[in-house]
Amino acid sequence: MIRGVLLDLAGVVYEGDHVLPGAVEAVHRLHEAGLPIRFVTNTTTKTKKELVSRLTGLGLEITGEELFTPGQAARTWLAKHDASPLLLVHPNLEKEFADTCDGPARAVVVGDAGREFSYENMNRAFRELIDGAAFLALAKNRTFMDDDGKLSLDAGAFVTALEYSSGKEAIVLGKPSPDFFEAALASMDCGPEDAVMVGDDAESDVAGALKAGLTQAILVRTGKYRDRDEHRFEPSPTAMAEDLPAAADWILDHRAV
Amino acid sequence: MIRGVLLDLAGVVYEGDHVLPGAVEAVHRLHEAGLPIRFVTNTTTKTKKELVSRLTGLGLEITGEELFTPGQAARTWLAKHDASPLLLVHPNLEKEFADTCDGPARAVVVGDAGREFSYENMNRAFRELIDGAAFLALAKNRTFMDDDGKLSLDAGAFVTALEYSSGKEAIVLGKPSPDFFEAALASMDCGPEDAVMVGDDAESDVAGALKAGLTQAILVRTGKYRDRDEHRFEPSPTAMAEDLPAAADWILDHRAV
Repeated sequence: MIRGVLLDLAGVVYEGDHVLPGAVEAVHRLHEAGLPIRFVTNTTTKTKKELVSRLTGLGLEITGEELFTPGQAARTWLAKHDASPLLLVHPNLEKEFADTCDGPARAVVVGDAGREFSYENMNRAFRELIDGAAFLALAKNRTFMDDDGKLSLDAGAFVTALEYSSGKEAIVLGKPSPDFFEAALASMDCGPEDAVMVGDDAESDVAGALKAGLTQAILVRTGKYRDRDEHRFEPSPTAMAEDLPAAADWILDHRAV
Repeated sequence: MIRGVLLDLAGVVYEGDHVLPGAVEAVHRLHEAGLPIRFVTNTTTKTKKELVSRLTGLGLEITGEELFTPGQAARTWLAKHDASPLLLVHPNLEKEFADTCDGPARAVVVGDAGREFSYENMNRAFRELIDGAAFLALAKNRTFMDDDGKLSLDAGAFVTALEYSSGKEAIVLGKPSPDFFEAALASMDCGPEDAVMVGDDAESDVAGALKAGLTQAILVRTGKYRDRDEHRFEPSPTAMAEDLPAAADWILDHRAV
C-alpha cells in the first residue's frame, strides 16, 4: 500500500518548455488524496530555485521542500567533507555553488555541462583527479531526450570518460544513488516499502529505486522511454503506465487507506 | 631468441619535439644487427607520411614500410566493409581518409581528436552510433604524456564515453588489438614467439603484446611510465629497462644467432 510518491521530472512531468498532457492535474490529484510527493530529478542545468520557479510558472504544484536535486546533495557532501569544488557543470548551476566552502580538500563535481564539456575542461578535471581530488558525479545518466526530439549524450558519458582515464570511480549523488532516494523518502517520513517511484528512465529511475529498497517502481512510456526499455535493466519495473496520469491512477488504486 | 622487434614511438623513441637520448643510435644498432623492426604507434595526430617525414628529420632510421598506424588499419577496415567514415579525429589525420570509400554503410572513427572533442562533435558521433553506424576506435589509451610533462586525457576516455551512452562496444584498431600486432609481425615474417615489444604503456604496449601471443615485452621507464606501472596490469612485463638504449642491449643479448 502506497504512502509516499517519488516523481521524476523531465520526461514525466515536463519536456523541454511544456508540461506533458495531464501532468499538472495528475500531481494535483495525488496532492488532493493526501499523498506526500517528492520530485527527484537528475536535471543539473538549473538551480533548485530556478527549477521550482519555472515549474510553478507552468502551473505545477511544487514547493522547494518537495524538490530533490543532485546539486543540493553535492553541497551537503562538500560541506561535510570540508572540500572546495572544481566545477564541470552547466553555467546555470554554478551559482548553486557560489557559497560552498573553501576547504583544503578538493572535489571535482561533474554535472550536465553541455557545451562546457570541452577537451580543455575535461583535461583540467582529469588532472585534478589524478592529483588527488575526490570525484562527485551529480548524475551518471547515459542519454536524455533533447529539444529536437532525439536522444543526446548525457553527463554519464563524460563521468565514465574521466573514470576510465583517472582510474577513480565517481561518487554518484543523484539517482540511482540509494542515498538520494533515501534522503527524499526520509523527508516525508516514508519507508521504502510504502513508496513508489515513477520515471521514464528504466535504469536510473526504476532499477535504481528498486535497488534502493522501494517495492514499487512504474516506468512511463513518455520522455526518453524507448520500446522494450522495460526489459533492458534489472530489476525491471513493477508496473508500466502510458504516462503520468495513468501512473497516478495506478497509485490512487494502491494507496494506503 | 629474438628475431623481430616491435617498438612503440611516443615516449620510447621521441617525446614532443625531440628524440629521447640514445634512441637514434639504439635503433641503428638493432638495424645493424640485422633485426627487422616495426614501429607500432597509437599516435593519431599525424598521417603516416607526416610521421615518417618528421622522424627521419629527427635523424631516425625509419621507412614507411616499417611504420604501423591505426589510421592505416582503419582505412583497411573501411575498404573491406564498404563503409564511409564519420571522423572524430585530429584535423591533421583527416587527409589520411580523403580517398576512403563512399559506401552505403557508415562507421564512426574516433582518434585523438584533441580540441575537436567538443560536446557537439561527440553528440554527432553518438547519434550516428545509435542510428546503426559501426564504431571504430583508432586507439583506446587512457593517458598520454603531454608537451608540458604532465599526463593528459587520451582518446580512450572519449571512446569509453560513447560506448557507455550508445551501448555499443568499439572495435579497437591500434594497440592492444591482437590484429594490429599480428599485422606488424606478419609484415616481417616473424612469429609472436620470436618477437619482442618495447613500450612505455604497461597496458596497451606490454600487456597487449603478451595477450597477442608475444613471449617477450619490455616496459621502459620513459614517457608516460609511472612508478609501479609494471604491477598495474596483467600480464606484467617480462623485462624492465631504463630506456630504449637499455632495451636494445637486452634485445641484442637475446637475439637469435
